[in-house]
Amino acid sequence: MGKGLPKRSEDYSQWYNELVKKADLAEHSAVRGCMVIKPYGFSIWEKMQAALDKMFKDTGHTNAYFPLFVPKSYLSKEADHVEGFAKECAVVTHYRLKNAEDGSGVVVDPDAKLEEELIVRPTSETVIWNTYKNWIQSYRDLPLLINQWANVVRWEMRTRLFLRTAEFLWQEGHTAHATKQEAIDETVQMLNVYAEFAEKHMAMPVYKGVKTESERFPGAIDTYCIEALMQDGKALQAGTSHFLGQNFARAFDVKFADKEGKLDLVWGTSWGVSTRLMGALIMAHSDDDGLVLPPKLAPIQVVIVPIFKNEEQLNAITEVVDKIQAELKALNISVKFDTRDTNSPGWKFAEYELKGVPVRMAIGPRDLENGTIEVARRDTKEKEVVAVDGVVKKVQDLLEDIQENIYKKALHYRESNTTKVDTYEEFKSVLDGKGGFVLAHWDGTPETEEKIKEETKATIRCIPVDAPEESGKCVYSGKPSGRRVLFARAY
Amino acid sequence: MGKGLPKRSEDYSQWYNELVKKADLAEHSAVRGCMVIKPYGFSIWEKMQAALDKMFKDTGHTNAYFPLFVPKSYLSKEADHVEGFAKECAVVTHYRLKNAEDGSGVVVDPDAKLEEELIVRPTSETVIWNTYKNWIQSYRDLPLLINQWANVVRWEMRTRLFLRTAEFLWQEGHTAHATKQEAIDETVQMLNVYAEFAEKHMAMPVYKGVKTESERFPGAIDTYCIEALMQDGKALQAGTSHFLGQNFARAFDVKFADKEGKLDLVWGTSWGVSTRLMGALIMAHSDDDGLVLPPKLAPIQVVIVPIFKNEEQLNAITEVVDKIQAELKALNISVKFDTRDTNSPGWKFAEYELKGVPVRMAIGPRDLENGTIEVARRDTKEKEVVAVDGVVKKVQDLLEDIQENIYKKALHYRESNTTKVDTYEEFKSVLDGKGGFVLAHWDGTPETEEKIKEETKATIRCIPVDAPEESGKCVYSGKPSGRRVLFARAY
Repeated sequence: MGKGLPKRSEDYSQWYNELVKKADLAEHSAVRGCMVIKPYGFSIWEKMQAALDKMFKDTGHTNAYFPLFVPKSYLSKEADHVEGFAKECAVVTHYRLKNAEDGSGVVVDPDAKLEEELIVRPTSETVIWNTYKNWIQSYRDLPLLINQWANVVRWEMRTRLFLRTAEFLWQEGHTAHATKQEAIDETVQMLNVYAEFAEKHMAMPVYKGVKTESERFPGAIDTYCIEALMQDGKALQAGTSHFLGQNFARAFDVKFADKEGKLDLVWGTSWGVSTRLMGALIMAHSDDDGLVLPPKLAPIQVVIVPIFKNEEQLNAITEVVDKIQAELKALNISVKFDTRDTNSPGWKFAEYELKGVPVRMAIGPRDLENGTIEVARRDTKEKEVVAVDGVVKKVQDLLEDIQENIYKKALHYRESNTTKVDTYEEFKSVLDGKGGFVLAHWDGTPETEEKIKEETKATIRCIPVDAPEESGKCVYSGKPSGRRVLFARAY
Repeated sequence: MGKGLPKRSEDYSQWYNELVKKADLAEHSAVRGCMVIKPYGFSIWEKMQAALDKMFKDTGHTNAYFPLFVPKSYLSKEADHVEGFAKECAVVTHYRLKNAEDGSGVVVDPDAKLEEELIVRPTSETVIWNTYKNWIQSYRDLPLLINQWANVVRWEMRTRLFLRTAEFLWQEGHTAHATKQEAIDETVQMLNVYAEFAEKHMAMPVYKGVKTESERFPGAIDTYCIEALMQDGKALQAGTSHFLGQNFARAFDVKFADKEGKLDLVWGTSWGVSTRLMGALIMAHSDDDGLVLPPKLAPIQVVIVPIFKNEEQLNAITEVVDKIQAELKALNISVKFDTRDTNSPGWKFAEYELKGVPVRMAIGPRDLENGTIEVARRDTKEKEVVAVDGVVKKVQDLLEDIQENIYKKALHYRESNTTKVDTYEEFKSVLDGKGGFVLAHWDGTPETEEKIKEETKATIRCIPVDAPEESGKCVYSGKPSGRRVLFARAY
């Protein structure tokens, strides 16, 4: 079957591109660098959004909405921030079109030039801190715990669906606090929320850590991240949480009066995950036959395919299936009964494999006689014929089991592909061999980091938050090091 | 009380502006024409979104996401469409900034000029039909029933929060069908969905009708709309549903093969409501003391204010309130217990009146002795002391009653302010007097429509879908007319 997907082992990159298209997740639009998220893909993103949104609200955050446009001068207010974001951005310079004099269509009206150019937000720190300035006067106004679901634009020349596009969807949390410690706690809390989401919902194990200076968010004091491993041995940064210190408060003059009336700058954080998570989800679990979706994020959790030759048979099957469907729905399990007669059962099996539906059931005339139904799980492809009577409980258990099994499989893969090395030779040979994460000593200098990147294309993904102290020697420079850091080639 | 709001009778417009700000719904941002939707306002919008999204899904639609940018040439492909939307739009001309040579900040990099300008979407018909072209080959691909939640930009010089802003949030449905009738049915279905949402959730009665040619969506064959009446006697268009005919299919060459293999152009619809509904909601029900929210859209449905002098009293009150809160939450009623000692009960009463919380309870030491609690409803301001034992049922009934009462009040207001007139004198005197909707005969010509608009500022809001045939004479020209149409001054 496989619906003509390339094999992962032959061309992982092409396998990914084809899978995204064939499973109806997304496609490139005619607008350079922008993607269209198709209904099936979007329904997975909606499930991610719902779960994350609940986690944000459970930790005390509320949603709000800030403008799409950032005045050019705002970007410049934080020195590192403008360095990081001015390079690739969409710039609005005019606010009107007019009919071309030669009748050839519409042209930009030169009389409608903006006094100050507007940047389509690449991220919203500047616009939001400029607003917070008016919202925060006293310690009573703090903490401010706000999240925004939005689209952002970062001009990209080389794009890949979900992984790197000019426009993408994300959420960005922006919080303001009275003390440094509170802001750090918030940063770490949201890192943990992301890690929990990745592991519990996406069934994707992640390493939590801190970025080195060179990989830090422009304008942050510290960037925390979660890093996942894809099946081709490359790492993917799946979410970041930034401790901003007082940088943006200073840039936008956001001060608060404490209980004693003393004025001080506010402490800030920001944190975000994006539709990039869709790319991570696809690459973490799927196989040569198509998507493998964790049940918690699958738009259709169960599909039932009837096997019939005529309407009479279909009616008899439908009677049994209606009852099963009703019971599954009562348990909040989403189920689809595909009765189309335009496609064969075999075609449907392949189709739902491609779409990653976790559980597939098939039922035909012989099953009706025996009171049975066939149940197949997408992750292991195991099939089993079970009694119709117990099938609802069976499916319920199976969904839980699949969620757990996918996670364990990914965890096992990651564990087998995280390698401690002590020499640069070993470092390079692991990267060129099985790939994956490499735990190695590093001397802590940006120079060494850069050299290693140049020579091996591996970057420091993070300094793991739980890395034990261990004295050793930098694999590159031989200089002393206090702990191992996590290297990988990455998306 | 009233938190210093202007009275509606004195300055309706100022009352609205102040209310939006003081109730923490939204504010103008420093970015010209764009608003910030604050957490409290956004949580009302989220409730609207959730209810609408469910209605869309229940009628077979799925969500997807299309690019923010529209290439300039796309806009030109449908002649009326470009006329309607090219005038006020945000134009992206460059994709990079660079450091100014004089060190003064960043400037647009002239080397990074786009070959073709991109328009920030004012609406997405063109981008979506350009995509549908690839999605539709055969009748089997139809109908295509897709919705998108998105931000859009229409450059506006004179803005008002929620009612008219350069950027706003909305949903836009875009469907494609094999037959004309199916597309018309879809257009009408979505009009009915909007009307049901307005009446059942917003508690806001609406007239359903068809726009005249001059008020039609640029590119549509017919525009259906719902029109609501605000408390100042002005109408507000609250949602539109467009029958596009084959216009966009023709512009983007979207054809399908029918069962016999014959190629034909696809039929289309589009329909949308926006954050403008927030403005309608506020103006339809609120009073001089603040917001009046229908319980179905209130972020906080019940607030409980303890009246206490010391911690001991608060503890005793809390014990009783905890039980009430738990029971209310079990019924999915959102409740807030405001135990702050930094503000007096009186201050809190005014605050929650301002915020439109439908039910307020207050409980003090004397209530504890008597086993009672005070229950006040926001809409009528009636207060009642009831037994704690029955209060949960009481609140549940009250919420339903408030939802219904607000609707009835608005309906009564609208009925009293919809006037049939037969002469132009009457027409003008009603408009200048009590205002509201005026049902009058019109000769069906754009010339008369335009004259009436010039002379009275009243526009034809719609030709009501249920307007009975009735022969009469146009109030302006005296020419024959077959039915009355609905006039009003409008937002």
